[in-house]
Amino acid sequence: MARNTNVKADTNAPPITQILAKFVSTHPSRGWSDAVDHEAHRTLMNWVGCAIGAARHESAEATLGGVKMLQPAPQSSILGRTEKVDMASAALVNGVTSHTFDFDDTHLKTIIHPAGPVASALLALAEVTGASGRDVIDALVLGIDVSCRLGNCIYPEHYDRGWHITGSTGTLGAAAGCARLLKLDEQHTAWALGIAASQPIGMREQFGTMTKPFHPGGAARAGLTSALLAKNGFTASPKAIEAPRGYAQVVSTKYDWNEVTGELGQRFEISFNTYKPFACGIVIHPTIDAATQLRARGVKAEDVERVELKVHPLVLELTGKKEPQDGLQGKFSVYHGFAAGLVFGRAGEGEYDDHIVTREDMVALRRKVAATIDEKMDEAAADVTVILKGGRKEHVLVEHAIGSLERPMSDGDLEAKFHALADPVIGAAKASAVIEACWKLGQAKDVNAVVEAARP
Amino acid sequence: MARNTNVKADTNAPPITQILAKFVSTHPSRGWSDAVDHEAHRTLMNWVGCAIGAARHESAEATLGGVKMLQPAPQSSILGRTEKVDMASAALVNGVTSHTFDFDDTHLKTIIHPAGPVASALLALAEVTGASGRDVIDALVLGIDVSCRLGNCIYPEHYDRGWHITGSTGTLGAAAGCARLLKLDEQHTAWALGIAASQPIGMREQFGTMTKPFHPGGAARAGLTSALLAKNGFTASPKAIEAPRGYAQVVSTKYDWNEVTGELGQRFEISFNTYKPFACGIVIHPTIDAATQLRARGVKAEDVERVELKVHPLVLELTGKKEPQDGLQGKFSVYHGFAAGLVFGRAGEGEYDDHIVTREDMVALRRKVAATIDEKMDEAAADVTVILKGGRKEHVLVEHAIGSLERPMSDGDLEAKFHALADPVIGAAKASAVIEACWKLGQAKDVNAVVEAARP
Repeated sequence: MARNTNVKADTNAPPITQILAKFVSTHPSRGWSDAVDHEAHRTLMNWVGCAIGAARHESAEATLGGVKMLQPAPQSSILGRTEKVDMASAALVNGVTSHTFDFDDTHLKTIIHPAGPVASALLALAEVTGASGRDVIDALVLGIDVSCRLGNCIYPEHYDRGWHITGSTGTLGAAAGCARLLKLDEQHTAWALGIAASQPIGMREQFGTMTKPFHPGGAARAGLTSALLAKNGFTASPKAIEAPRGYAQVVSTKYDWNEVTGELGQRFEISFNTYKPFACGIVIHPTIDAATQLRARGVKAEDVERVELKVHPLVLELTGKKEPQDGLQGKFSVYHGFAAGLVFGRAGEGEYDDHIVTREDMVALRRKVAATIDEKMDEAAADVTVILKGGRKEHVLVEHAIGSLERPMSDGDLEAKFHALADPVIGAAKASAVIEACWKLGQAKDVNAVVEAARP
Repeated sequence: MARNTNVKADTNAPPITQILAKFVSTHPSRGWSDAVDHEAHRTLMNWVGCAIGAARHESAEATLGGVKMLQPAPQSSILGRTEKVDMASAALVNGVTSHTFDFDDTHLKTIIHPAGPVASALLALAEVTGASGRDVIDALVLGIDVSCRLGNCIYPEHYDRGWHITGSTGTLGAAAGCARLLKLDEQHTAWALGIAASQPIGMREQFGTMTKPFHPGGAARAGLTSALLAKNGFTASPKAIEAPRGYAQVVSTKYDWNEVTGELGQRFEISFNTYKPFACGIVIHPTIDAATQLRARGVKAEDVERVELKVHPLVLELTGKKEPQDGLQGKFSVYHGFAAGLVFGRAGEGEYDDHIVTREDMVALRRKVAATIDEKMDEAAADVTVILKGGRKEHVLVEHAIGSLERPMSDGDLEAKFHALADPVIGAAKASAVIEACWKLGQAKDVNAVVEAARP
C-alpha cells in the first residue's frame, strides 16, 4: 500500500481546465486576425499533403491491418486511400501517416507537431457530423492553441524528461478541437479535456520506429473518443490539468501557468507554426537552402571543385554522416542534404530514397564538401562557399533557412511541397483539387471536397 | 529546437522489453502451481461480477453512448448487457464497469487493480478469436504478471507522483495478455509491449470521477489495439520499457529492474491478488472491518457518543471526506465507511447509494467520528475506540482487514459477493451459471459459456 508522498506540488494553480474549457466553448467563430485564419488553412493543407504522401507506407498498412480487425464501420476517410473506417480509427491512421515522413508542421517553441493530433481527429469527426468548413477551421485554431499552450507551459522539462511532446499534449488539443466541433458546452468541454488529460501519449525512445508516428495518431484517437464520451455525460475532474496529481504536474517538473492563460484569445499559437521544406532534421535546412540558392544562380554539380561549409557544432554532432549508406542515414547527413539541394533543388522524401542516396554522382559530390564547425555561427545558419573548376567562387550565407518563422514557406512553396508528396499517390489533378479545397475550407459547407479529392 | 538534457538516466538497464516478450511468448501453458491457476479463476470470477454489477451504471451508459457513435460491429459482449460492440470498445466498456464500484481486485504491493485492464481486453479478444478457456487463463496469468511486475519496478515513486498505477501499468499487461492470446512470437510481442509502453493512462486527480474507472477501461483498449497493430507488423523500440527515454524512466524516478526479472516464471504476481469485501478504497477496509466487529459485539449507532479513529496518514489523504454529499463521495470517506459498517454490518454497493450516504442518521454518526493520523500505524491497520453514552468504551485494533492476503475471502465469500453484485442485473440463476462457467473456464473450449450466461 502506498505511503505518503513528499513530491512537491503547486496547490495554488489557476483553474486552467475551466479556463480552457470556457475559451474553447465560447470563443467567437473566426475570433482572430485574417493572418491567423490563413495560417490555419496552411496548417491544414500541409498536414493533408503529408498524410496523402505516406498513405501507402508500411506504417499505414500495419495500422490499417490492426484497425480492420475491429470490422470498422465506413464512417470516415483515410487520406490518400479508398478505405473508410470508423472515425476513431480514421483519426488514428491519418495521424500516423501525417507524421510518418517527419515532414509535417512544427511549433518551434516546443517542437510540437501540432496538426497531426488535432487535424486528424477533426477531419474524421467532421466527416460524420457534416460540420461546416468554418467550424473545422475554428476547431483547428482552438485545438492547436490548447495543445501548444500546454506545451509552452511544461516545455522544456517535459520534453527533456523523455516525453514526445506532440502526443503528450496532442490528446488535449484533439479533445479541445473535437469538443468545439461537437458544440459541447463549457462543462462538457471540461470533461473532454479531463478525460484526455489522463491519456498523454508518447516517449522519445520510440524515435526511429513506427511508434513515433503512432503518437500523433494515438493522440488523435484518444482526444476524439474523449470528446465523444464527454458528450454522453462521462465526467472527469474539473482540475484534471492543473491539480497537484493532475496532468501537468505529473508529466513535468515545470509548469508555467501563465503560458496557458497569458493573452488567451488574443495571441494564437498557430501563428508560430512552421512547415518543413525538406524531409529531414531542421538543423540541415540552412545548408540545403544554401545549396538551392547556388543552384538557382546556375551552379552545376559537375562544375564543382570543392565546397567549404561552415556550421554550428551541433549540426555535425547530429547530422555529420559523411558516407550515408541508405535513405534513413541520408537524413542524418548534412553532406547529402547539400548534394540534394544542389542537384535537385529540393530535398523531399524522394531525394532520400535509397537509390538517390547511394547514386554515384551524389557520393562524389558529398565527398567534395569540407565541413568545419564554428562556435560563433548560429544554429539556424549556414555559410557555404563553392569553388568551381576554373577557380570562380560563389558564396551564400543563410541566416534563417526557408521554412523558419523569419522566412516562411510561401503559399506557392507549400503547394509545390504538397504536389511532391501527393502526386505519386493520387495524381496531380486530384492533388490540385485537394489544394484548392483546403484553401477554400473556411467557406465550404462541409469537408467533403477535401476528403473526396484526396481519394485515389 | 530542444537543448540537450541533464536528466539523470540509467543507461545500463537489462533488456526488460525483450525479457518480458520472451517470457510472455514462450512460457508453457499452465506453467505454474494449481494454487496460481485457481487464483486466476478467482480473479476472473470476481472481475466478471464487478462488471455485471455496474452494467447499468451511468458510467456504463455514458461510455456506451460514446462508443455507439462509432457504429461498432457486434464482435464482443458487454457483461451484464445485451449489446455487442467491436472488441476494442468492449474492452473499454467492461474495463470501465468492472472498476466503477471500486470493488474489483487489488495487488496490495502496488495497489494495482490488475484484472480490469487485462481481463477486459482478453475476454473481448477471445470472443472474436474463439480462444480456448485454457488460453485465456494462461494469458490472464501472464498479462497480470507483466503489469504487476512493472508496478513493483516503479512503485511507489510512480504512484506518489500522481499516476493511477492501474491504468499506467495496465496497458502493458493488457498488451502482453493479448499478444499471448494471439500467439504472437517474441518479436511481435515486444512490439506490442513497445506500442503499449507509449500509452500509460491515468492520474490520481481523477479519483472520484468517472475517469477513474476509465483508466482500466482505456488501458484495456490501448493494450488490445497495441497487440492488434503489432500482429500486423507495426514496430516499436526494442528497449521501449527500459531505455533512458522509455516508459519506466519517464513515468517514475524509481525503477528496480530486479522486480521485473527476479524469479520470472517461478513467482507469479497473481498469487498476491486480493478481493475486496467492501465497495470502496482498500485503505478504508480496516476501519469498516473494525466497525462490523463492534456491531457484532452489540454496539449500536444510537448509543455512540464519540468515536476515536487512528489511522495511517494516507487514509485521510485519500479518503478524508468528512461530509460526503453522494454515493461517489461516500467512497472517499472513511467516516461513511465506519458508519456503514456499524449500521449495516457491511459496505457493499447498496451502502453507497446516494440515499444511504445522505441519510440523517448516517450523517449524524459520521460527525461523531474523530479521525487522527499516526505515522507509526501500518497502512493496513485501523485502531478504533468507541465511547458510548454512559462512558463505556469499546476498542478494536484491526491489523489485517478481511480480504487481505493474511485474511483472504474464501471461494464461498467470493460467490456471495458475486451474487450480491450480479443478481439485481441478470438474476440469481444466470449469476450461478456465470460463476460455474468461471470456475470451469480452464477446461472450456471457449469463453462463450461465460459471456452468454452474463447476458440478461
